[in-house]
Amino acid sequence: MIQLERNILGRNAEYAAANRARLGTARVTALNVMSSPGSGKTTLLVRAITDLRGRYPIAVIEGDQQTSNDAERIRAAGAPAIQINTGKGCHLDAHMVGHALDTLAMPAGGLLFIENVGNLVCPAAFDLGEAHKIVVLSVTEGEDKPLKYPDIFAAADLMLINKADLIPHLDVDLGRMIDYARRINPDMDVLVVSARTGAGIADFYDWIAHRTGSKNATARVAAQGIPPT
Amino acid sequence: MIQLERNILGRNAEYAAANRARLGTARVTALNVMSSPGSGKTTLLVRAITDLRGRYPIAVIEGDQQTSNDAERIRAAGAPAIQINTGKGCHLDAHMVGHALDTLAMPAGGLLFIENVGNLVCPAAFDLGEAHKIVVLSVTEGEDKPLKYPDIFAAADLMLINKADLIPHLDVDLGRMIDYARRINPDMDVLVVSARTGAGIADFYDWIAHRTGSKNATARVAAQGIPPT
Repeated sequence: MIQLERNILGRNAEYAAANRARLGTARVTALNVMSSPGSGKTTLLVRAITDLRGRYPIAVIEGDQQTSNDAERIRAAGAPAIQINTGKGCHLDAHMVGHALDTLAMPAGGLLFIENVGNLVCPAAFDLGEAHKIVVLSVTEGEDKPLKYPDIFAAADLMLINKADLIPHLDVDLGRMIDYARRINPDMDVLVVSARTGAGIADFYDWIAHRTGSKNATARVAAQGIPPT
Repeated sequence: MIQLERNILGRNAEYAAANRARLGTARVTALNVMSSPGSGKTTLLVRAITDLRGRYPIAVIEGDQQTSNDAERIRAAGAPAIQINTGKGCHLDAHMVGHALDTLAMPAGGLLFIENVGNLVCPAAFDLGEAHKIVVLSVTEGEDKPLKYPDIFAAADLMLINKADLIPHLDVDLGRMIDYARRINPDMDVLVVSARTGAGIADFYDWIAHRTGSKNATARVAAQGIPPT
């Protein structure tokens, strides 16, 4: 079984490297967005597409066991989207993403959001060729999820704590949630947002802008005292 | 790969049958509780243990990738608990549960709750030897989860819609959530509860009582006009 797992991950790494090369050639920043089911990933992407429309070309790859609901929501928001149905599978892999790249109109110089299957376990081990991994954690899920599902938090560059608008109605301790996440991954950035109301979402856009290296972005981030890369 | 999957599920079925025989001999009703991370499974079990203490002996098997947080919460509520850490694994299997049964004090004539790893995909295919599968879906997760993760809803005998206390603060359409679930599984029972406030939870206890076949339970259920099994 261990040998089989190594073979699967080895082949995945080859496909991921090929995806990364294609994305690099087109100057596309790919973000692999992972979370539990129902944490608000699609709502987040719909808002980002609407708000960032004038700033970057954006395309989306959607992963779900079944349905093309999410791709339809993304298209309704104005971005091209490819839906991948994984059937029994609990995560996207680089081979699936490569096939999607064959048919998706490449958002040259812009952003590719890859919304993974809703799952806090399986997606962690599979490089898709993305520039960054983002984990979304809803405040409704409780503080201890980073400790209980550590691999995905260890792999992420950014944690978006979503549904901040619900905090007044919950017993959640946000400070403890962030502390637990930092125990698993001290280098991970953390932003608190509400995809529903838009609160905090501008910080997410700045985080993205800082990673695309566009001049606009660098200027804005520099103005906030964060050194540009 | 398909052959390997068949072998794994075939071996799992043998272990599950052995677990079912052991549980049957001890007249234990085992309930396999499955959901996304953070839907409130442990909170639900803590409340059930407290409320049902005088009615049944209760024991719990807890599944998580990491930590023994949940087993500790269960023990603090007064029930014996065994924590299984699955490491990279995204679900419990019957072999793991068999090992836990070796060390757990068997709640003869009572209830065994098996809290699966928080995951709406992987646990669906693995029989643990339980009497019934229960899927918990939080109102915060959105209406469409039964359509997007159909296998786990198809496998369940009961859907508990949890966190009903949050409904006033959400855009969720409960009728649509139930409709989508019934499209996947028309025979599944559906109850709306709040594990936090206790609202609706008595219906869950009646559902359990109806399935343990105890005389108390049969009498109460009969009084409500539901034919006893």
